[in-house]
Order: sequence, then structure tokens, then C-alpha cells
Amino acid sequence: MTTTAFEAVPALDGARRTPGLVVMKFGGSSLADTGKLKQVAERLVAAHEGGAKVVAVLSAMGRTTDDLIRLAHEVSSAPHPREYDMLVSTGERISNALCAMAIHDLGHRAVSFTGSQAGIVTDSRHTKAKIVEVRAQRIHEALDEDKIVLVAGFQGVSTSTRDVTTLGRGGSDTTAVALAAALGADACEIFTDVPGVLTADPRIVPQALKLDVVTYEEMLEMAATGAKVMMARSIEVARSYGVRIRVRSTFEDGEGTWIGEEDETVLEKAIISGVTHDTSEAKVTILDVPDRPGVAARVFRALADAGVNVDMIVQNTSQRGTTDVTFTLPKSDLRVADPILDSLAGEIGAGGVERDPEIAKVSLIGAGMKSHPGVAADMFDALAEAGINIEIISTSTIRISCVVRASEVERAVQAIHERFRNFAEERVGVD
Amino acid sequence: MTTTAFEAVPALDGARRTPGLVVMKFGGSSLADTGKLKQVAERLVAAHEGGAKVVAVLSAMGRTTDDLIRLAHEVSSAPHPREYDMLVSTGERISNALCAMAIHDLGHRAVSFTGSQAGIVTDSRHTKAKIVEVRAQRIHEALDEDKIVLVAGFQGVSTSTRDVTTLGRGGSDTTAVALAAALGADACEIFTDVPGVLTADPRIVPQALKLDVVTYEEMLEMAATGAKVMMARSIEVARSYGVRIRVRSTFEDGEGTWIGEEDETVLEKAIISGVTHDTSEAKVTILDVPDRPGVAARVFRALADAGVNVDMIVQNTSQRGTTDVTFTLPKSDLRVADPILDSLAGEIGAGGVERDPEIAKVSLIGAGMKSHPGVAADMFDALAEAGINIEIISTSTIRISCVVRASEVERAVQAIHERFRNFAEERVGVD
Repeated sequence: MTTTAFEAVPALDGARRTPGLVVMKFGGSSLADTGKLKQVAERLVAAHEGGAKVVAVLSAMGRTTDDLIRLAHEVSSAPHPREYDMLVSTGERISNALCAMAIHDLGHRAVSFTGSQAGIVTDSRHTKAKIVEVRAQRIHEALDEDKIVLVAGFQGVSTSTRDVTTLGRGGSDTTAVALAAALGADACEIFTDVPGVLTADPRIVPQALKLDVVTYEEMLEMAATGAKVMMARSIEVARSYGVRIRVRSTFEDGEGTWIGEEDETVLEKAIISGVTHDTSEAKVTILDVPDRPGVAARVFRALADAGVNVDMIVQNTSQRGTTDVTFTLPKSDLRVADPILDSLAGEIGAGGVERDPEIAKVSLIGAGMKSHPGVAADMFDALAEAGINIEIISTSTIRISCVVRASEVERAVQAIHERFRNFAEERVGVD
Repeated sequence: MTTTAFEAVPALDGARRTPGLVVMKFGGSSLADTGKLKQVAERLVAAHEGGAKVVAVLSAMGRTTDDLIRLAHEVSSAPHPREYDMLVSTGERISNALCAMAIHDLGHRAVSFTGSQAGIVTDSRHTKAKIVEVRAQRIHEALDEDKIVLVAGFQGVSTSTRDVTTLGRGGSDTTAVALAAALGADACEIFTDVPGVLTADPRIVPQALKLDVVTYEEMLEMAATGAKVMMARSIEVARSYGVRIRVRSTFEDGEGTWIGEEDETVLEKAIISGVTHDTSEAKVTILDVPDRPGVAARVFRALADAGVNVDMIVQNTSQRGTTDVTFTLPKSDLRVADPILDSLAGEIGAGGVERDPEIAKVSLIGAGMKSHPGVAADMFDALAEAGINIEIISTSTIRISCVVRASEVERAVQAIHERFRNFAEERVGVD
């Protein structure tokens, strides 16, 4: 095999630009029932009537994928990955075929393609395949016939095994961005149930503001720290190929949020792009670890080999000759990690292992913070004023994350958002 | 296009025999839920453990296809045929993928193929495609790897358009028989919710007997006159290619019924193979049709051009210069036929059109009746004794059909079955 990892390479050679082409992606919540699906069809027709060449990527309707996964677990304790992909890929075929029918009913021409028919070629890692190539010939032919093209998201075909594959979490976003890159689209529009990328979760911070623009880097950090609007993976593809993304509401008009390259004029005064939070992780502390070289490597190598995604790691030096090693990991990985940790603790002569699932991570993201010292101090101060204790701190050039008690996460997000609200308002142009 | 109509040619050239191979087909009622689907998986594994090479064709589970069709009509008044096929073909992919998982869970290897992956090549007539070729290379490869092969029934791919097609009613039976022919299988087993082909509908005739053997011709006549166990279309393919079919119960053991070539030693004493009935048709009479050449042709050409399936036709000569033309057609075709008939009646100067949906057709089938004169008289006599009036009579060499009032159909079936019961018992070996 000499296929290139499309999702990882820095540029797409030979992509032909297609002026006036837009890729529009709709998630399951925009397709909860046939009534909403017909609204999506109307939206696509409106874009087509407005003069655009339209390629749409639809997820499965509502809970379809969950229903299919439930069936799989009813017949098998460990569903075979190839058959799992064959099964769950049907959900998107259903929604896309239905939408094509609805478009025909509106007097326009449409055609729905499976991932395979759309030329989404992947590697053969079932349930988590990566796109290696997009062979868009059939899409171009259909566009040349003035059809609205619908592509089943989340899936592709492995040319080595000729089997259906699925792309794993965030798969439909990745399909949309990869198609926008391969087709040379003007933009990739991600339609969702919020008006755009917000400065915080509006269920926690009702005053949260919609951002007009956000950089790839900021969006990556926001996605990695709990923002649900897009998965980090698809943003990485967009950044690699320079695909301009627009996040907007399915059922409201509005400009939405553009995701793209950093623009100095917009961002120089803009410290923050948002406050995110994540309650899906647990904290583990290995107590009294002997303070000698190689111990940390051994612990985290064992966890990585088991596929455990360790996030934040904190280790303080100590005068005692031992140290505590603390880290966070997805709660869903605890079942796998637990026996490894117990066994490791014994082998390295540690004092024991403590698990704490009652934590939350709250993060402040902003490309502008690189040039604004004091942001971290302001964030810690906001938490202190709210009486919230910080358990772990981790930073990048454009992000500061703090682990706090899960019971305090809402107050933490509110306190931080309130402290940086002026900056957010400046950024979005609120007077 | 120079493809040959596989479903219509008299012999399959170059088919390689595969000794020990059996094709096993399961319909939706055998797959009503995941519990039943697991039983099907166990049945396939048992056949494999018994030494057979197993190719299974599964329909969609339970009401899946109906649910998908309902969705289509929610989004479109006239679902686009290509998209309709894309939509409804997912049902079989789901059941076959689930069954493959269940087989893996039982410690055996299996692989599920879409119609396209299985090499079921069709013409491009969406929703009613015909199989033109079976390219079984992937199936052979999987069998060589000792896998149980599952094929999604009812669907194929048009190589001219590269689109998914469906085969229409009876499609999964046709898939199974075509695969058995192309693979050179020892037999094609049709699993269903009855123990085999019965001499009458057991809901009407509790004493109905299971037949051990039935000829293709008898089964074709039975299917054409109301027997639900198999569609005529798939039996025609089996007859063309000499595929031996075995109809048997999914959830009981038992020999079932073999369908094959006529065997003199078995059939010479066997007059009847069964009594069938059909309440799906309506009777139409065109009154006082001028008795001149070309009128009948004009009527039935117009109906045929509109896709109306006319079944029995009766026209008596008359001394009056006009005649009544009576025929039956599916009730579901009345909506299309009605305006054509009204218009035709005017054009040809007929006296009017009468519609009667309250009819039923009861038929007696038997290859042996060719050499037993008097069968028709016995049948009419049985109906007369039961006080049932015969409205239309139609016969073939191995079938006699009578139209009666719909309200009398159950008594008619019972009376005929009782009259011919001795012959049936001789045939199946009851002492």
C-alpha cells in the first residue's frame, strides 16, 4: 500500500477549485424527523436557487445510529468491526436517500451517494478509518448535470479490502471538510442547533456570545477541552487544507461563525474566544512514587499501549524521595486502566492508587493571550473570588485549563466568563 | 448494452458446480427480532458444522422495509426510484450484518455482502430490476476461507449506472435461487414459517397436508393463484437453471418440501398438489360490447400499456350482436384501470362498465390431472354440493380456477380440499 494519509498530509496536490461550490453538513439533531429533514431539503434547494453548486453531507437521522448499535449489542457481545461498519453505515444512507427524494419533490434534481460512490477512500481500520483519498469524479459529473449532490457522512470504502468503513466520532464533519478540500469548495458550512461558536455553553452562561470568527488553533483547543460544536479531527483537516468553515444554525438565519486562519487585525485586541468545560474525565493519583528516572515513562507507556487517552499530567518534585503522580483520563477508560494501574503500583513500589471521578476541567481559550500576560493570573483570581479550589493546572500558548470539583463547574465557567466578558464583547463588536 | 437477461435464459453457461454448497434463504418473519435472528445464526452454524459450505440470503428484519417505505412517503409524494432503491436496500444490509456478528459470537467466521459486493448485477430498472449476471468471485473467495457467506437479498447493482437497484416483490427468493444457480449449489433452501408447501392454507383447512415433493410447474401455478410460500418469479429461475428448492420451517426440524422436475413414479397416482385461493383481485365486466374484430385487443392493449395485470378473461359469443367481456385484475390496479375503462367503453360503444371487488379465486393444482379426466367435473360438483355458485372458470393443463363470491371462499377451499383429500393423502403417503 502506498496510499497517502489524506487526513494527515499538509496540502492537497492537484485539487481543482470549483468556484461557487459550497459543502453543507447537517448533523443528526438537524434531522430528528422527516419534518426537519424536509426543512433541510428546502435549505439546500434555496442555496441551489441562489446560484451555488451544492454538495451536502448528512448524518443519520436522530437516534438511528444509537438504535443500530443497540441491535448490534443484542446479537453480539463484541460486534465484529467489519460487520459493525456495514451495519451502522446504513443510517446515513437512509437520511441521504430520503433527502434526495424530498428535493425531487421540490422540483429540483438530486442524487445521493454512499461514501463509496462519492469516492471517499479510507484505510481499512474498521470503526475508526482515516480518509486517504477522495476520488470525486462521480460528484463532479453530478454537479455538471446541475444536481444537488448528497453524500452519506461518516463512511467510506477501503480499496484494499473493498469493504465499507466508518470514520468514527466526528466522522460526518470529517467527510464534509475532506470533500470541501478535494472539491476546492468556497466553504464548508457546518449546520447545527446553535447559532455558531459561542464563548461558553449557553445552558450554563445565558449571556454567552456568538463569535464572528475564530482561528483553527482556537477551535482545536475549544474542541479538545469540551466544546461540542465540532470534533478536533475535522478542524485539523480543515487547517491542513485551508478549508474555510462556517458554523451556523440549521433552523435560523444568521451569519454564524467563520473558522479560518489567524487575522491580526481582528485578533490583536481579542484575548479570549471562549470558556469551555468537560466533565467526562476522571483524576487518578499514584501515591508515593519512588523519585527515580524512568518511572513516569513506564506508567504512561503502559497506559498508552492499552489505548488509554491520558490528558493532563502533573508531577511535583519532592524532598521526600517519593512523589505523587496525578493525571486525568476519560472516565470511559477507567475500566481498562484500573487493573494496569494496580499492577503498576505494585511493580514500581508506589504507595497506592486513588481514583476520583468527581472532577471537571474548565478552560479559557484565546489566540490573543499569547501577547497578553496576566491572563492566567486573572483566571485564577476569578476562581479564587468565587471560592473555587484549583486542583490541577495545565496550559498551552493559547489555553489555560484548571481541574476543579465537578459540583463547582458551572460556577467556575460563569466566574471566568464574567471576568473576561469585556474582552469577548470587544471581539464580537458589542458596544 | 449486451448483457443477457439471467432471469430469462434457459441455461447457465460455465457455472462451476460446488459440491456440498447450500444456499439458505430466510424471510422477514424468520427475522422478526434479534432473538429470532440469533436462532437463524445458530441454524447456519449448525449447517456449517455439519460440513456444508453455507451461503445465506437474508431479507430485512420484520417490518423494516415497510418502515422505510413509510419514511419515503413522508418526504415525497412520489419517491424517486433511484433513491427509493438506495433507501429500502438498507434493510437487508442491517439484517445480514447483524447475523454475521451473531455468527462470529458463536465462534465461527462469517462475512456479509451487499448485493453489489456479492456480484448481483442487474439491469437499471429501479424498484423492479432483473438479475442479468452473477459475478460470484468474492463469494468463492470467502467460501475458500471457510467463512459462512451472507448476502443481502432483494438488491443488486446496475453496472451501467453504478447504482443500487432492488428486485421488487419476491426479490430475496430470486437472489437465493440465482446464487444457487450461479454457484452450482446442491440445493436452495427457502426457510419460512410453515413446515413446507401445504395442500391448502392451514388457517382455512386445518387438515391441510404438507407435500414431500412438488414440480416446478405445480409450484408456479400455486404461486400464481395465491400460495404465499414463494413468488412465481423465483421458481421460474429455478426451473430454468434446474435449481432444486427445498421449502422448510425456520424454527422446526423436518424434511420440508422439495421442488424440482417431474418424477413419473411419484406423480402418476397423484392428482392434486393443492388448493389455493386469492382474494386480491376484482372482477370487471364491460357490458354490451359490439361483437366485431379488434375490440378485445383494443381493450387489453390499453390496460397492458398502463401496466395493469389482467388475469382471467371470459367472453361468450352472443346472438345479440353484442357480448359481455369479463376479466379479473388486482384490486390495487383498479385506480389506474378505472379511467381507461370508462374512456374505452365510450369509444367502442359499449353499454357500460361494472366493477365487483367482492370476488375470490379458488384453484385446484396438480400435475397428475393431465392424465386424469374428470377432475374439473369433480371440482365443480364439490362446489355445487356446498351451494357455491361459480362465476368464472379458467383452466390450464395442471390447474382449474373458479371465481366465486369472496364471502364463500373459505367454504369453497374446504369443500374442494375435502373432495380431493384421498388423492392428497396418497401422494404424501398417509395410510
